[in-house]
Amino acid sequence: MSLVIISPGRNPEPWIQALKKSNPNLEIEIFPDVKNPLEVKYALLWQHPEGILSEYPNLKLVSSMGAGVDHILSDPNIPGNLPIVRIVDDRLTWSMTNYVVMGVLNFHRQIQRYEADKKRKVWDMSNPEIPVTIGVMGTGALGYDVLEKLDFMGFPVVGFGYSEKTDFPYPYYSKEHLQEFLSKINVLVCLLPLTPDTENILNLELFEKCNPGTYLINVARGRHLVEEDLPVAIGKGFLSGALLDVYREEPLPENHPFWDNPAISMTPHIASVTNPAAAAPQVIENIRRMECNEPLLNLVNRKRGY
Amino acid sequence: MSLVIISPGRNPEPWIQALKKSNPNLEIEIFPDVKNPLEVKYALLWQHPEGILSEYPNLKLVSSMGAGVDHILSDPNIPGNLPIVRIVDDRLTWSMTNYVVMGVLNFHRQIQRYEADKKRKVWDMSNPEIPVTIGVMGTGALGYDVLEKLDFMGFPVVGFGYSEKTDFPYPYYSKEHLQEFLSKINVLVCLLPLTPDTENILNLELFEKCNPGTYLINVARGRHLVEEDLPVAIGKGFLSGALLDVYREEPLPENHPFWDNPAISMTPHIASVTNPAAAAPQVIENIRRMECNEPLLNLVNRKRGY
Repeated sequence: MSLVIISPGRNPEPWIQALKKSNPNLEIEIFPDVKNPLEVKYALLWQHPEGILSEYPNLKLVSSMGAGVDHILSDPNIPGNLPIVRIVDDRLTWSMTNYVVMGVLNFHRQIQRYEADKKRKVWDMSNPEIPVTIGVMGTGALGYDVLEKLDFMGFPVVGFGYSEKTDFPYPYYSKEHLQEFLSKINVLVCLLPLTPDTENILNLELFEKCNPGTYLINVARGRHLVEEDLPVAIGKGFLSGALLDVYREEPLPENHPFWDNPAISMTPHIASVTNPAAAAPQVIENIRRMECNEPLLNLVNRKRGY
Repeated sequence: MSLVIISPGRNPEPWIQALKKSNPNLEIEIFPDVKNPLEVKYALLWQHPEGILSEYPNLKLVSSMGAGVDHILSDPNIPGNLPIVRIVDDRLTWSMTNYVVMGVLNFHRQIQRYEADKKRKVWDMSNPEIPVTIGVMGTGALGYDVLEKLDFMGFPVVGFGYSEKTDFPYPYYSKEHLQEFLSKINVLVCLLPLTPDTENILNLELFEKCNPGTYLINVARGRHLVEEDLPVAIGKGFLSGALLDVYREEPLPENHPFWDNPAISMTPHIASVTNPAAAAPQVIENIRRMECNEPLLNLVNRKRGY
């Protein structure tokens, strides 16, 4: 019995150490140098090559290395009855919220304007704050935490999601009321799960409905955004700019137009990075539960997509 | 009976409007075009010319346009028995905290590194977070709010001040324990009032006691910082950089070395700007109290300096 780590292009060492610490007896194989494919019962995945799981016919459980599982569900060859679990980690939430709050504050307090003024030695005290109302798309664990922290800081916040919610503690709009949601805000944060419903949701048609100069923060998945629509929306003034952490292709190709667009701030998918030390015990615990026929933690509902 | 506004180089119009809205009958004079100096009983000051108040022999009360009164107390010609009041405004606190939290997050999440990477088209996902513990010097209304917000966001925080405090809800160090305070932190926020005790407190001797690479945020007064010591402390690695909103001379002179120092981020004294609409009613209310011999709001203790 072994677990295979399949995360091409990433250093698996921190995961190996963390998993061994949690269960020293666990046999770990690292893709592509797998010695005994028939022994592999568990897989820990991040952006695995499509179809690769067919090399492990005795696989019983697949775990994502992070909170998202779109990189797993997008593989049409995943056996339909194979359970998939994901990581739920307070620290992931903490990092994500800090990143979003940073993006909101940098827009609100115009840090880029002052950086440009510094370069030109300009002292301009006028209008130091852009009033903001923040709309968060996706009100799961991540989106909720962002709403809660920004609300505590005294900012007006609004939530948007695909399900109907009653008793939500913040103003909330479900998908039929997208336009009304957009009319309330001038900072748009995307924290939706990536599903067929939400793919390409950030497109020109949506940006046109925004208040002029709305600021976009996308920390969910690259495929939420129709990338060619973003510079157009900025050019037309629908958006004033964006902070992006995720892209349709990662690493972002060298010839991608975002690199040279001064209105687009970018980070390389680091808004929230799974900490193996915190996540490994969840992987180990789910292996134990599987072996003991106990209910799994954070089991993914494939229909829902998360 | 009139009030004189003395704020050279600033547009008094928003104050005039806000004061008139609060009390339409108030006679307002604008320095230097004061028609009836003998009628002036009240003064609203921001960086007045030293000694100028002797032109108003019937002055009964002086009000600062902001939270600080160092610009008033630094004038040795202020009559010793003239009461001085200042503005206390929740919105000033809100803006200040947002600014400081922005500075903390930009250091923690290394926004400058990612901006530089973007310019060079570099995709580097390594070590996305610098662990931080934030130390706040000055634990009055402003410092306390910063501590509270950062604590709610899940950051470790420590306070420092000149008075002994018991029952303070965060770890607190009084002035005898400066070294211990500095040993606990790697982000140093200055929110002290400017008094003879605190002037020049941010100097090379203090920076040497900091954990290497500590990040400085000064949002109090320029004269807290010995400015020539800052590039030295950065050069020696005591500090990794700084975010400054205040300077010994404002506007910052064109030949000042801070402009060209890439480790120093700067804003032009806009961290927290008094909103006349919110502050004018306090000025009017203190005039009313003075006329009725009632206790003044936010009366400054000259010995304490705030």
